[in-house]
Amino acid sequence: MATSMARFTTRNLFKILLNSDGCKAVRSITSSQLYVFRFGDPTAVLRQRHQELSPTLGPREVMVKMLMAPINPSDVNMMEGTYFVQPSLPAVMGNEGIGQIVETGPEVKGLQVGDMVIPADTAWGTWQTYKISHDEDVLKLPNDISVLSAATISVNPCTAYRMLKDYIDLKPGDVIIQNGANSGVGVSVIQLAKEWKFKTINIVRNRPDFDKLKEYLLSLGADAVVTEEFVRTPQMKELLNTFSKKPKLAFNCVGGQSATELIRHLGQKGVMVTYGGMSKRPVMAPTGALLFKEIVLCGYWNTNWNRIHKTDIARYEMLSDLSRLIKESKFKPPLCEFFKLDDYKAAIEKATEGFKGVKAVFDMQ
Amino acid sequence: MATSMARFTTRNLFKILLNSDGCKAVRSITSSQLYVFRFGDPTAVLRQRHQELSPTLGPREVMVKMLMAPINPSDVNMMEGTYFVQPSLPAVMGNEGIGQIVETGPEVKGLQVGDMVIPADTAWGTWQTYKISHDEDVLKLPNDISVLSAATISVNPCTAYRMLKDYIDLKPGDVIIQNGANSGVGVSVIQLAKEWKFKTINIVRNRPDFDKLKEYLLSLGADAVVTEEFVRTPQMKELLNTFSKKPKLAFNCVGGQSATELIRHLGQKGVMVTYGGMSKRPVMAPTGALLFKEIVLCGYWNTNWNRIHKTDIARYEMLSDLSRLIKESKFKPPLCEFFKLDDYKAAIEKATEGFKGVKAVFDMQ
Repeated sequence: MATSMARFTTRNLFKILLNSDGCKAVRSITSSQLYVFRFGDPTAVLRQRHQELSPTLGPREVMVKMLMAPINPSDVNMMEGTYFVQPSLPAVMGNEGIGQIVETGPEVKGLQVGDMVIPADTAWGTWQTYKISHDEDVLKLPNDISVLSAATISVNPCTAYRMLKDYIDLKPGDVIIQNGANSGVGVSVIQLAKEWKFKTINIVRNRPDFDKLKEYLLSLGADAVVTEEFVRTPQMKELLNTFSKKPKLAFNCVGGQSATELIRHLGQKGVMVTYGGMSKRPVMAPTGALLFKEIVLCGYWNTNWNRIHKTDIARYEMLSDLSRLIKESKFKPPLCEFFKLDDYKAAIEKATEGFKGVKAVFDMQ
Repeated sequence: MATSMARFTTRNLFKILLNSDGCKAVRSITSSQLYVFRFGDPTAVLRQRHQELSPTLGPREVMVKMLMAPINPSDVNMMEGTYFVQPSLPAVMGNEGIGQIVETGPEVKGLQVGDMVIPADTAWGTWQTYKISHDEDVLKLPNDISVLSAATISVNPCTAYRMLKDYIDLKPGDVIIQNGANSGVGVSVIQLAKEWKFKTINIVRNRPDFDKLKEYLLSLGADAVVTEEFVRTPQMKELLNTFSKKPKLAFNCVGGQSATELIRHLGQKGVMVTYGGMSKRPVMAPTGALLFKEIVLCGYWNTNWNRIHKTDIARYEMLSDLSRLIKESKFKPPLCEFFKLDDYKAAIEKATEGFKGVKAVFDMQ
């Protein structure tokens, strides 16, 4: 079967393939991709390439045009090779993002052209302009939420959602304490807790613009915002006494002394869920806290939850809940700085400078 | 009401009290008691006294003649004032032991003279020759198990029993790893695990007589006995590979690096239950173990379990199970050295020299 190919552009545009009878058009696409060929320093191992995608879709495949994709800490760890999941190399990077379906295979069900979709799995590769995906590897989102909110819905908001739902049966008025409260998960916790009428005590590292950050977190619904240093003063006890209950649940993304302080301020039978370890120091629990205060320490790993609940009703319920809150302006997207895929070096530099509350996001629109 | 008292002895013997009509004998007793008047170094704060007990029993009271009572680590901590439960002082010490009912109040139900009983609660005060107790504050044991087994049934064997039952739904062939394996709880875990067909990997501190200790633990049913040093060698991995499964459950009574090693050798979703902290160092968990291996860390505190389940059916079932195993010679009492109450100074010295696998036990018979 001879084909004559008219190549209109070298990148990101449809190509028309005419087959031997000269009338059936099959579209082909070149995808601009950010990929790593070996694990290491992200600024050294992340590269760009232009990959021609298969001109035809399999029966259950969809062509996704990516619109926006953030750089999360787990992306950085994946490039470094320190993440628990290591894709086989070379691999297109990006675990989160939003795309739109531009073509569907003949047997695809429940998805159609124009649908907004997010990856169902980790290591799907969102940092590219186009991707052919099995229909089971994407999840449909409502079309009427902002592209940025959709692009950043599946990691941090879902982590916060599950941590608030799955460990303690919280009642309105119950108190949560968290460190790294300005992280993507932290601000998600604040907003969901406000919506669900839980109180949050939020700990952040001290910084020159602490007052501004405090004001921002309070505006999202935080009940208290304090520095790591404050937590170690006697005033912390006074602050805790202004709440009617002791914290039942703690969220830790720091480790080390910061985590130990969370454990110290938890009430009887409190649970501390660890979802990150920014300080690279272990979680340290005094024996007495485990024995006499009956504290339980566990971890939440979003990737694993998604793997287990890939297309469960629980996942759709969560995404639907979150989408509704976004539409009602009760859940804001993170503060972001946008980069084109071509400017990936600057984006990676931004993302690795310490996740200071502003997320680097690739905008492919 | 005038009474004339014939005092036959100054200690530990019945006294006859004759009331005004000269015919009704009411018995009174002097109890030899070990008590503390303030918290501190046990060798300094533990004292002996001879206390005259009330000559009449309340309607629901029983007179218990103590037969045997061990010195546990928690007793030492209680004398030091470092235990989570602090009795009001002065207080008779001893949290565990076996006694026999020698008299009952008129409304006591379910207990009679001759019954063997153990304290239902912590801080009951077993280090004395006689005690008047409310009938709800003692639990009846079968009369046909050895006094030593009965005297040491309620702390270590019950701790092991609950830790094996309440955290993971273990199946025959499942593997448990524990440190401090020669502790009272450790040897209880070994024996119960053998009976219930679980495998145990047992870690002890190195010592000159390690081979002898290893042989003893193997004789109780241990599947492997290794030193703390061995656990940190590559040979540990080889040993683990000889088991068909990775450990699901870890028991920690040491803390610090030893606990971290237990966490390291647990399988996916493993649970580490901490029941002591001999090293006085905190439990340290790498963030990755909590996140990616989904390890859960918690604590078991027997005192609290007993408080909650004081007279629950679950507690009677446990004591009945353990008594049956003792009778069938499937559960041995710990290695002990016996002391008279009068020799309490030597007993405390023995007990505080490091709990080297031989328990100091008061024998009041």
